[in-house]
Amino acid sequence: MIRLVNFGAVAIALFLGAAIDQRSGAAQTPASGGPVNTALIEDLVAANRILAEEGVLDSYGHVSIRHPTNPNRYLISRTLAPGLVSADDIMEFDLDSNPVDPRGRGLALERFIHGEIYKARPDVNAVIHSHSPAAIPFGITQVPMKPVFGAASFLWVGVPVFEVRDVGGPATTMLIRNGSLGKALAATLGEKPVALLRGHGDVVVGPNVQSAVRRAIYTEVNARLQAIAIGIGGPINYISEEEGAARDKMAGGEAEARAWELWKRKAMGK
Amino acid sequence: MIRLVNFGAVAIALFLGAAIDQRSGAAQTPASGGPVNTALIEDLVAANRILAEEGVLDSYGHVSIRHPTNPNRYLISRTLAPGLVSADDIMEFDLDSNPVDPRGRGLALERFIHGEIYKARPDVNAVIHSHSPAAIPFGITQVPMKPVFGAASFLWVGVPVFEVRDVGGPATTMLIRNGSLGKALAATLGEKPVALLRGHGDVVVGPNVQSAVRRAIYTEVNARLQAIAIGIGGPINYISEEEGAARDKMAGGEAEARAWELWKRKAMGK
Amino acid sequence: MIRLVNFGAVAIALFLGAAIDQRSGAAQTPASGGPVNTALIEDLVAANRILAEEGVLDSYGHVSIRHPTNPNRYLISRTLAPGLVSADDIMEFDLDSNPVDPRGRGLALERFIHGEIYKARPDVNAVIHSHSPAAIPFGITQVPMKPVFGAASFLWVGVPVFEVRDVGGPATTMLIRNGSLGKALAATLGEKPVALLRGHGDVVVGPNVQSAVRRAIYTEVNARLQAIAIGIGGPINYISEEEGAARDKMAGGEAEARAWELWKRKAMGK
Amino acid sequence: MIRLVNFGAVAIALFLGAAIDQRSGAAQTPASGGPVNTALIEDLVAANRILAEEGVLDSYGHVSIRHPTNPNRYLISRTLAPGLVSADDIMEFDLDSNPVDPRGRGLALERFIHGEIYKARPDVNAVIHSHSPAAIPFGITQVPMKPVFGAASFLWVGVPVFEVRDVGGPATTMLIRNGSLGKALAATLGEKPVALLRGHGDVVVGPNVQSAVRRAIYTEVNARLQAIAIGIGGPINYISEEEGAARDKMAGGEAEARAWELWKRKAMGK
Repeated sequence: MIRLVNFGAVAIALFLGAAIDQRSGAAQTPASGGPVNTALIEDLVAANRILAEEGVLDSYGHVSIRHPTNPNRYLISRTLAPGLVSADDIMEFDLDSNPVDPRGRGLALERFIHGEIYKARPDVNAVIHSHSPAAIPFGITQVPMKPVFGAASFLWVGVPVFEVRDVGGPATTMLIRNGSLGKALAATLGEKPVALLRGHGDVVVGPNVQSAVRRAIYTEVNARLQAIAIGIGGPINYISEEEGAARDKMAGGEAEARAWELWKRKAMGK
Repeated sequence: MIRLVNFGAVAIALFLGAAIDQRSGAAQTPASGGPVNTALIEDLVAANRILAEEGVLDSYGHVSIRHPTNPNRYLISRTLAPGLVSADDIMEFDLDSNPVDPRGRGLALERFIHGEIYKARPDVNAVIHSHSPAAIPFGITQVPMKPVFGAASFLWVGVPVFEVRDVGGPATTMLIRNGSLGKALAATLGEKPVALLRGHGDVVVGPNVQSAVRRAIYTEVNARLQAIAIGIGGPINYISEEEGAARDKMAGGEAEARAWELWKRKAMGK
Repeated sequence: MIRLVNFGAVAIALFLGAAIDQRSGAAQTPASGGPVNTALIEDLVAANRILAEEGVLDSYGHVSIRHPTNPNRYLISRTLAPGLVSADDIMEFDLDSNPVDPRGRGLALERFIHGEIYKARPDVNAVIHSHSPAAIPFGITQVPMKPVFGAASFLWVGVPVFEVRDVGGPATTMLIRNGSLGKALAATLGEKPVALLRGHGDVVVGPNVQSAVRRAIYTEVNARLQAIAIGIGGPINYISEEEGAARDKMAGGEAEARAWELWKRKAMGK
Repeated sequence: MIRLVNFGAVAIALFLGAAIDQRSGAAQTPASGGPVNTALIEDLVAANRILAEEGVLDSYGHVSIRHPTNPNRYLISRTLAPGLVSADDIMEFDLDSNPVDPRGRGLALERFIHGEIYKARPDVNAVIHSHSPAAIPFGITQVPMKPVFGAASFLWVGVPVFEVRDVGGPATTMLIRNGSLGKALAATLGEKPVALLRGHGDVVVGPNVQSAVRRAIYTEVNARLQAIAIGIGGPINYISEEEGAARDKMAGGEAEARAWELWKRKAMGK
């Protein structure tokens, strides 16, 4: 049996057996994309916990998934440290990042990163924004981040750096707190899996949440190893474009499940 | 209901239902600033535990808060590793760092750091002194500590380095063990949030204990990331003064609570 | 009493009291090398867990042992993160890396590393393939890995680097997914205990699983220390060939047991 | 009530109520220095566990104390990973490193480090030999280890490097496995608190076990911080000789107890 979670006011009202339309008078509140399989919500919760456990997400940062049946909605936690997120904290938004059912909960300030990437990238079903500590130095120095080992081969397409000053001027708070900045960031990301935000962190995307989590973790690991390699002394023998492209063609399925199983066990204690 | 903790001898005497004035004959013992809300004491205890858990405080270092109703008193643990501090260990001092109610307890040797900063900085209600490991190298080398990512943007005003030799001569123990050294350190700090102590550690201040803790943790993280960036190779694209100033104007409230909640859960196990 | 584990279909059939020959019609399925002492299986499981606990193996990588009574068979986990491996996950293979009793289980993709090394190295009874994080940078830079402290003295014979492009061409996935690549890797390893795989990880071998585990851990530690030494500044006073050779002659027995006991306790929680 | 532990055969015989003199016929077995307060043994056990917990001791290395009532005896664990040592593992030796009561137990191979230092240094009552990971690179490079922060100020007298090739020739195993090498190491140490062993580790001594533990931990921390400072770029403003000498005159008592209490709690789980 598939269990479903309802996010919209109507669905909740039905769930409670109530007939009142709570949306009346709230013209700008978007409708829910419909109920979501609880297993998918559990994966999203696990992704939050895994990335906290593995040191990719600190108290900030967030993970989202696109709504499984309505591509114009996405799911993300209310503002909360990822290490503390539970299923009850997941909220639904439209792609302009308006909440479907706010109920007074705090909204992730930089949720526009997620909405704008989902608009620009139909292939993407999961987005991570983190302060990935080893990645940050590569956003503020002159050495491009490049893949140094196989598990991070997806970086072979290049890792663009988003400079918020180019879009928001010299005196922003650096936060992606509106659709305009989110749209510019999505443009910098282009068709790639990872972009760095100068002096801030990174965004990592994937076709599903397991893939995005794997990429976020191995972006962090790759950054650590690349910095060590630079310290040892070059030239560095990076993963080539041909090797990266060959690996992109491998089905990620089994390998991804193997890592996900371990990470989930460590993060969720089961 | 607000619960209160009494620190002064009179208050304790009343609490015990006794009529004896224990202060008789102890002319130099200052009077207590009055009872303190237990929630505030719990925050001070949590701050000690959090900073130990996050690797900012080792066996030494200390955290204090200004007395909430008497600005001429401050609260700090008896001499004890911060990771072991409980509410019962908190003592009260006047700003010359005389204890209100010593009861034979060991006094933090460098408490003058706290007293003198509270004298000089009416805006400050929490002071942290740590041996923050990543920060120490920036106090003994020639590269100024500067903010490399948003969460440490408060460093944009600059991080002065206190050289104890300039004040105490070439043969001190380097410890801030009297009011004179504490006053000189407070002068070096000036209006800034952080100062480094050469070959020793740092001091971090804030308008409240949550803010000071956040700054102490992100000073440590920033130092780690800046050292890595230097290793990768410059020039480094630091957070600009304009960006730092813009972030200073953001209300810290929600973001600070988000991190505090996670750190407290990790450190206090609940 | 010595307990035995049976891997072959016949042995399992006997164990279940069944008379059906499950091998009929499966001409290419090799016969089992015979039952294996459970203590040896437990050591193989412990090796997986230890290397995960010590940070040498991530979600990938694997450990194998040669079959104790049939040198043409080896034992390795089904595809599974090493930190999750239990005795039930151990499978048996011939040296062409065909499974004795697949039962639909996922096979370690790069198991050819193991089979080909067992063919080439009769002295080897345990093989580890890892993404040892500190070792990877030495496979992509220009400084040879050399022993910097006694516990890693076995590196004195040199650490060759396997370049998959030399064998598989410029566009492989870099994975050792067939016998041909495995054979080339075994040739690069030669008579040595450790070889690096460029942009991938390392292989470590030993006369028994305890020895291979010790070498894998100290290869990782040596890499960390060598990188730090390079950062401090050379020339570096490495372990000499004469010292390395002298240590090779020491009986490893007691010293190895000492470390194994601690590592096992940490990894297995007992 | 003071409880005592007996190490000698006679004492044990008495404890067992037996009258047999087990020493008969074992002319070279030294007599015990007499019973030892169990609290002192507990401190020695705690020292082993603390140094393992803090990452100074790996599976190897050892801690000893001089016998409290007979300066010609010392106490050290049988050969065992320090993280596993209990009171029952402690053995007694004379200063030539002969065991008082072997009972077939494995002897620490490099115990001669301890015996020879106790001979040469009447002021020393505790000796630690470790593979302190951050310290090893300073024994093989060209930058002398010097104190970078107050807690390691005891290094101001200089940290000599013992080169085993100078004494044992080019082809030793590098282990201090006899009195002659131990004596040479003690000579290199001289009157100082710490010496590095090239490509091996360090020795750290103190007037008591708490002091030696504190020095061993802060030698490791100092090495980490000095390596980071070198990476940031010099010249480095080290702790001066005058500052170091001033700190040497401070009573270590209270400060040492403060750290010991925390370390013990972490290591012993109580």
